[in-house]
Amino acid sequence: MKQIIILFVLFSVVNSYSQTKDYPFVPVTFNKVTLSDNFWKPKLQVNRDVTIPFCIAKCEETGRVKNFSIAAKLEPGAFCTNYAFDDSDVYKAIEAASYSLQLFPDKKLEHHLDSLIAIVAKAQEPDGYLYTARTIDPKGGTQLGRMGTERWVKEREHSHELYNAGHLYEAAVAHYLATGKRNLLDIAIKNANLIDQVFGPDKMHTIPGHQVIEIGLAKLYRITKDDRYLKLAKFFLDERGKFNYAGKLSTDGFQNGEYWQDHKPVIDQREAVGHAVRAGYMYAGMADVAALTGNQQYLTAIDSLWQSVASKKMYLTGGVGAAGDGERFGKNYELPNATAYAETCAAVAQVYWNHRMFLLHGEAKYIDVLEKILYNGFISGVALDGKSFFYSNAMEINNVEGSVEAERKRSGWFSCACCPPNIARLMASVPGYIYAQRDKEIFINLFISSKTQFEFDKQKISVTLNSNYPWDGKIVVSVDPSAKSKFTVSVRIPGWAMNHAMPTGLYSFAETNTESPSVSINGVNQKLEVRNGYVSFTREWKKGDKLELNLPMSARRVVANNQVMDDRGKVAVQRGPIVYCAEGKDNQGATSNLILPDQANLVYEFKTDFLNGLGVITSSAKAIKIESSQTDIETKSQALTLIPYFSWANRGEGEMEIWFPKRITGINIKSK
Amino acid sequence: MKQIIILFVLFSVVNSYSQTKDYPFVPVTFNKVTLSDNFWKPKLQVNRDVTIPFCIAKCEETGRVKNFSIAAKLEPGAFCTNYAFDDSDVYKAIEAASYSLQLFPDKKLEHHLDSLIAIVAKAQEPDGYLYTARTIDPKGGTQLGRMGTERWVKEREHSHELYNAGHLYEAAVAHYLATGKRNLLDIAIKNANLIDQVFGPDKMHTIPGHQVIEIGLAKLYRITKDDRYLKLAKFFLDERGKFNYAGKLSTDGFQNGEYWQDHKPVIDQREAVGHAVRAGYMYAGMADVAALTGNQQYLTAIDSLWQSVASKKMYLTGGVGAAGDGERFGKNYELPNATAYAETCAAVAQVYWNHRMFLLHGEAKYIDVLEKILYNGFISGVALDGKSFFYSNAMEINNVEGSVEAERKRSGWFSCACCPPNIARLMASVPGYIYAQRDKEIFINLFISSKTQFEFDKQKISVTLNSNYPWDGKIVVSVDPSAKSKFTVSVRIPGWAMNHAMPTGLYSFAETNTESPSVSINGVNQKLEVRNGYVSFTREWKKGDKLELNLPMSARRVVANNQVMDDRGKVAVQRGPIVYCAEGKDNQGATSNLILPDQANLVYEFKTDFLNGLGVITSSAKAIKIESSQTDIETKSQALTLIPYFSWANRGEGEMEIWFPKRITGINIKSK
Repeated sequence: MKQIIILFVLFSVVNSYSQTKDYPFVPVTFNKVTLSDNFWKPKLQVNRDVTIPFCIAKCEETGRVKNFSIAAKLEPGAFCTNYAFDDSDVYKAIEAASYSLQLFPDKKLEHHLDSLIAIVAKAQEPDGYLYTARTIDPKGGTQLGRMGTERWVKEREHSHELYNAGHLYEAAVAHYLATGKRNLLDIAIKNANLIDQVFGPDKMHTIPGHQVIEIGLAKLYRITKDDRYLKLAKFFLDERGKFNYAGKLSTDGFQNGEYWQDHKPVIDQREAVGHAVRAGYMYAGMADVAALTGNQQYLTAIDSLWQSVASKKMYLTGGVGAAGDGERFGKNYELPNATAYAETCAAVAQVYWNHRMFLLHGEAKYIDVLEKILYNGFISGVALDGKSFFYSNAMEINNVEGSVEAERKRSGWFSCACCPPNIARLMASVPGYIYAQRDKEIFINLFISSKTQFEFDKQKISVTLNSNYPWDGKIVVSVDPSAKSKFTVSVRIPGWAMNHAMPTGLYSFAETNTESPSVSINGVNQKLEVRNGYVSFTREWKKGDKLELNLPMSARRVVANNQVMDDRGKVAVQRGPIVYCAEGKDNQGATSNLILPDQANLVYEFKTDFLNGLGVITSSAKAIKIESSQTDIETKSQALTLIPYFSWANRGEGEMEIWFPKRITGINIKSK
Repeated sequence: MKQIIILFVLFSVVNSYSQTKDYPFVPVTFNKVTLSDNFWKPKLQVNRDVTIPFCIAKCEETGRVKNFSIAAKLEPGAFCTNYAFDDSDVYKAIEAASYSLQLFPDKKLEHHLDSLIAIVAKAQEPDGYLYTARTIDPKGGTQLGRMGTERWVKEREHSHELYNAGHLYEAAVAHYLATGKRNLLDIAIKNANLIDQVFGPDKMHTIPGHQVIEIGLAKLYRITKDDRYLKLAKFFLDERGKFNYAGKLSTDGFQNGEYWQDHKPVIDQREAVGHAVRAGYMYAGMADVAALTGNQQYLTAIDSLWQSVASKKMYLTGGVGAAGDGERFGKNYELPNATAYAETCAAVAQVYWNHRMFLLHGEAKYIDVLEKILYNGFISGVALDGKSFFYSNAMEINNVEGSVEAERKRSGWFSCACCPPNIARLMASVPGYIYAQRDKEIFINLFISSKTQFEFDKQKISVTLNSNYPWDGKIVVSVDPSAKSKFTVSVRIPGWAMNHAMPTGLYSFAETNTESPSVSINGVNQKLEVRNGYVSFTREWKKGDKLELNLPMSARRVVANNQVMDDRGKVAVQRGPIVYCAEGKDNQGATSNLILPDQANLVYEFKTDFLNGLGVITSSAKAIKIESSQTDIETKSQALTLIPYFSWANRGEGEMEIWFPKRITGINIKSK
């Protein structure tokens, strides 16, 4: 019976999915990919076994679920957590669990979600309004300052009523796609219909103070075909930049709207500014609307914004939002290491946005950035244990007195808990970023071992990818059409394999590869012609065909654009997509004293027993030592051990460094 | 004939000087002291021979005098300098020349001043208004933004109409006291009468945007006995803190009035904030009004403000105004070395204010601060050549890449030229800070070789001071009453001789003196009882009595309060009142690499042929050297040569340091 219902629902979705415009490049969604990867599958298993249950349990323990229960009048009480936007953590946890259910079916979890959704349903007001803080206390209570005494009145700045809604829609669509059930989707639709009744050109005007509803509405539109949702998404975007802030001319982003990207119409925005998570979600929403409407002004704006981020405002790890004060983008090239903020949620938002940029343009540079984030600045946000998290991601930990305090160790949960469930939901959906398709062209974007199926001309083409990436550069793709047929397979040649540490030149390799990437088909070497970052093979494919890609995996030094003050005269180390760092505990207790001379060789070794199995790089550094007198120092040669950046802070606190001086031109002496 | 006129004028002054309240301690003014000091007399000679003629010549060359000439319609033209407040430079130059004339009579200079004053007189409008920019172009011209289209309308922030007036009054009183001539005084009185007609409780309200008129009015009041001037000074002070700034709650000092001390009523101000020169002049004006009116609320405020400056906001050199942005006081203990601003004019203002604090309270701690400024942070403002000046006074020059740029060498003049004539006028008036009197008590505040005469009970008491201070600690005071009589001689025992590097504890000596100060009278050792910083001897004094003070002159390390972040773990070196520094050229080209270990001895030697004769301190430092490979560093023992801070930057540019790490607890490696 259940099978039948699901089939019916899927049918109705396909039937209704008839809008004429969308992304020209179509992703193979998470629910159509089977994962077998040595690197990611264990992470997704930890995500299923630990992180997702942990997030759900925390939502329950901390009162986030109880807020729904109180709003539903299932129990008495006042709003019992810190922020009115805490509802969104429950939605994100459901979204994460939904993706995971697809990969790892789990009846118990599915039922648990249903029971949560039942409470959410009861917390929804009859007209569709869903925001537990106000349903519990319409006049504001402890959340008065944030939400005001009436619906929506503080949305522009503080209430997050539309933010909660956006996360609800994302969760509902994921849950529906994974399970075929409409219980959460119907709640979302009812809510979206209310919002459509309230807001619009001839209705109430506002902007979402924290963007995300734009993405959610685009997803609802694709599922339902109801173009009110698309119009609403565009309306919310087009409303930005119209409000006359009292402090319009102030340089304080909170007073002139810049903090929430309300300083200019979105189509006029060219530089990424303000809160980095809000910005990333907004740019992703703009990409959706651009794809779904063909709006050229949106495209022009996000193309410029992407240049702004990727050529001037991104750390080597893919982290963005350099400034902790306001969780903001810094100025151009303002990428300090010691005070780096690089919020985990901002990395998540960048993955969403870069994926959409690829879907618009079909260029591999967006996947280069996406891969950089996934393998470095995103997974650094969660420990190997799956239940401790970084909110911000330090680029340097320095024990020298007077140094700025960065987030030195991961925490179990946060009062403002946006990051853990954001990690859980992106981690669970990683299979959705591997493949894409356009007409009769198959795109292989990420080298994650997995299997999927494409269909065209009523043929089924099985594609199986096998690799030990990111540690090994050999990737084998088996292409198995049900019958011999002509189509194209395009394989991404990563920018790093072509000597671009960043597609925009913000970072470059100081050493070129000794080898070049190579591709063979069925053992026959192929000529390598890279276009838009892909090598494409259009031929008659037959069952059993094997494409083998070999990427050169030497460890190399990276240098930053000279305008990045904090990295001047310094080098970082990268191998494949992996950025390395040194931790004090592998380097005689310290890293702030290390110099990596140009002459020192970089030696790679995979260590099976180390931190669940990792590629480690060793070299020979010069270490500056302070003698016991504390009035003398000297330099000693010392082995240098580098580990992948994503694996730092799994063995307690200590110094950490990504960028190493390559020579000494001056010193500042610290004293106490 | 001239003699008779002067006597008549002096008589009329004494006659009219009958207000009932004033400072309880009475200074012996500059015109009653004859200087013979080895340290200061050569400086005052350079001031006479070079600095004062240079300032007058610059006022002429740059168009400052021409502005008066154009306003007087003696020649055609527009306002021809950069700032409407440039008039004040002419007044300050006249003031400086007046003090100097008293010490070094000079007919030619006196006539030159008369010719300048004649032009100033003609530039004054019939009703007394004197502000060349507006007289030349009443609607503003190039100065429109600063002065507005009508008199006084921009006084609160920008016009400096009352600032120019204040400097006029100070110059007029100095010129009158030095020469007995009323030509400038009458101009000042005419201007002050206009200002009194315009401003007052039932007339126009404003505040002087840049304080100084308060001091000037108090001086006019003492000379004329006309209490309108005192009331006006108090009115201008009491008006502060009443204006409702649009940006009242802003933290930007320009928007909330804090920059010009208009954020609170003056009697409620407790922390020194905003522009340091404005603040210092204002506090001095408050002291004058407190003395002349007995107002207790003024006293309470300036006592707190003095604590604020002297215990939390003053460099070891006496410099104040740590922040270059706004030439402002920093926060408490915000005394960075590399970015120190410490404007020369702010040091001048602090001398004025601290002198007045002594005159109110009779405590030596104010003279301790005054002496600290005079011997360090004030005279650092002018080179040995007498014609190149520091506007700001660096506390550290660091050639390490990425270091902040400080003012590295003195300049001949500045577009905003407040500092050079301010140096000239304070330098020339130094004799006025040596002695004071209260009833039958004589105060010896500074140990500057000189002679003066006191009078009481119709007796004349000659006092002659001989010393080789600040290099030697032996000070001989000859007390010669015309007949044997009983009175008190109080000699200041400097805080530094009592192991207080700063009376407030902001700085302290890390090493105590091996000897104590001692006093003998006619060769007989006296018991040393220090009260309020003085030893007092009340006895029958007779002609030929000799008091000998011996101050312990060992060179010692100073440490800062631990809350001064930038000095943590560091030591400075002081000997007597002199703060030392190292320059690169005496220390193998660099100072940023030097460590001064606690064990290193400090050896003092006077060098006759070095920089006109200076006490130099040598020691043994550890110097960190970068090897030619630039990947190794090592520490070497190296001779350390320290010179008085005031004498730095007389031999070209290079590194300079006052505070030395005493041990290394960490290093920051610079790389390029």
